[in-house]
Amino acid sequence: MNDNKKEIVRLLKESEGSPVSGQEIGEKLGITRAMVWKYIKALRKEGFDIRSSPKTGYILDSSPDRIDPGELKKILQTSLIGKDIRYFSELESTNSTAREIASNVSEGTVVIAETQKKGRGRMGSEWQSIAGGVWLSLILKPAIPLENVSKITLVAGIAVTNTLRNMDISARIKWPNDVLVNGKKICGILTEVSAEVDKVDHVILGIGINANVKLSDLKYEIRKNSTSIVNETGNTVDRTVFLANLLYELEQQYIRFETKQFADIVDEWINLSDTIGREVRVTTPHKLIEGKAVGITERGALVVLDKNKKRQEIIAGNCHYSN
Amino acid sequence: MNDNKKEIVRLLKESEGSPVSGQEIGEKLGITRAMVWKYIKALRKEGFDIRSSPKTGYILDSSPDRIDPGELKKILQTSLIGKDIRYFSELESTNSTAREIASNVSEGTVVIAETQKKGRGRMGSEWQSIAGGVWLSLILKPAIPLENVSKITLVAGIAVTNTLRNMDISARIKWPNDVLVNGKKICGILTEVSAEVDKVDHVILGIGINANVKLSDLKYEIRKNSTSIVNETGNTVDRTVFLANLLYELEQQYIRFETKQFADIVDEWINLSDTIGREVRVTTPHKLIEGKAVGITERGALVVLDKNKKRQEIIAGNCHYSN
Repeated sequence: MNDNKKEIVRLLKESEGSPVSGQEIGEKLGITRAMVWKYIKALRKEGFDIRSSPKTGYILDSSPDRIDPGELKKILQTSLIGKDIRYFSELESTNSTAREIASNVSEGTVVIAETQKKGRGRMGSEWQSIAGGVWLSLILKPAIPLENVSKITLVAGIAVTNTLRNMDISARIKWPNDVLVNGKKICGILTEVSAEVDKVDHVILGIGINANVKLSDLKYEIRKNSTSIVNETGNTVDRTVFLANLLYELEQQYIRFETKQFADIVDEWINLSDTIGREVRVTTPHKLIEGKAVGITERGALVVLDKNKKRQEIIAGNCHYSN
Repeated sequence: MNDNKKEIVRLLKESEGSPVSGQEIGEKLGITRAMVWKYIKALRKEGFDIRSSPKTGYILDSSPDRIDPGELKKILQTSLIGKDIRYFSELESTNSTAREIASNVSEGTVVIAETQKKGRGRMGSEWQSIAGGVWLSLILKPAIPLENVSKITLVAGIAVTNTLRNMDISARIKWPNDVLVNGKKICGILTEVSAEVDKVDHVILGIGINANVKLSDLKYEIRKNSTSIVNETGNTVDRTVFLANLLYELEQQYIRFETKQFADIVDEWINLSDTIGREVRVTTPHKLIEGKAVGITERGALVVLDKNKKRQEIIAGNCHYSN
């Protein structure tokens, strides 16, 4: 948005519902009333609901719910993550775009889209990514061997969960990478990697959060297991502020991952876990394991004590709760 | 090469050094002597050393050492690997080209180049890829989780080693992925992957073999630790036939990997290993481990018994022999 439009929105917001005249706006901005009118029409096209009456002036009834990348940069308190933000109204998939640019951008670059046409979940599943959500992909370039990549998913799960809990939303992590509130999915994480066996080129953390998503706009099969921030709290969240908080948490957790013992992260993950202690059924391409989830290993594998009290470690699979 | 040129080369080879007249060639191929002469000139441009005398005819003194992808397809005895062969005179790197095309080609596609301008070894090191070598990248799409990828490197090491041993070259595998003959490197393997944590999209096996490479053409720092097939046996190898044998072995080992217990592969790898039983120094980004190499795990990690008799598992690192 250009500066004049931003300034008009600011003036209308400041007046908190009292009308502001075109003349007053024009004088403050040093532009003609005709130009003010032109900007008002442009703002309406962008989704701002602006009433006008020739006698009294303009009133802002509502603003479109859009992420403001300029504002995000301004309020962001990170030194690595989000220093380069690529913001789009719509993408096929933020992860796909991140993959395309990953080799040519610096670590910490974030791709954000208002909507995704082909949002992806784990193992090729669909992820419905409609207006109001937070759909982002974070490009990381950690100096780790391939086998440590799954740890990064745990790190991301903790960051999302902490961001939600700081808003008094009782989020918990379902292994391997969903964040639940009251048993319903509020966030999914898709970790993709390009690597040599010895050395990761880049990891892409795709994070999808049903922030201001209206559940009634979701397909039934998705809706029945989903929730959103607005559904849990009754209020829409300012997604720009939410993103600033999320990227800050991601950076804190990533710094901890790079500098501290991984055991600390495992401990915190277990504290935030929705899965540990439950009876679970885990399906992998090759087998089905039933038993009690008792922990995770340092590699991020779920530890299940099966019916024969045998300890099973599962690095990848779909987890269902039996009770 | 077109069929007439191929036929001319065949006739000249058959005569084993006795001259073949342009008239005879022309009659056998049903073309004029002027056309024969045109083809001879084209063949000379391609590196065939063909003598001619107006009285007696043509003599083939030497053929260029080129891989013949058409012939390779004809003699290949595989059902998956090499069904799609992308052959190039020169590439920056076969792995880079394989990465670019991987999503759009079927499993088993092989990229081959006569020379690489920027051949890469592990962790960004240079791999000198001059004329006479076998430089290839194999694209695989196994339905395995990320953490099983390093196993594929073991599978490739076994396939290369078996191919060489079938030629009575006493090859052995140095952990993690070099093939040595008499302590010198004859082959390197670079495994790259694009994946979700749960599911591999594709693995690219870059395999570089100093087949007919003249050691004197290598840089000194590389030459001193390298050997080649021609250096070991005294004879150049027909690289087209060698490739057919190598791709066959790769397919056999890959089928075994997909259908059999991995423990079998570990056993064979240990049998072929140059590393197990030796005193080693292994460097990783974070530490140095010294001790005796005593085995590998199912994940492909090297097991080292350190000075304190403590068992260390190393999934990625550089291995040096202490004795």
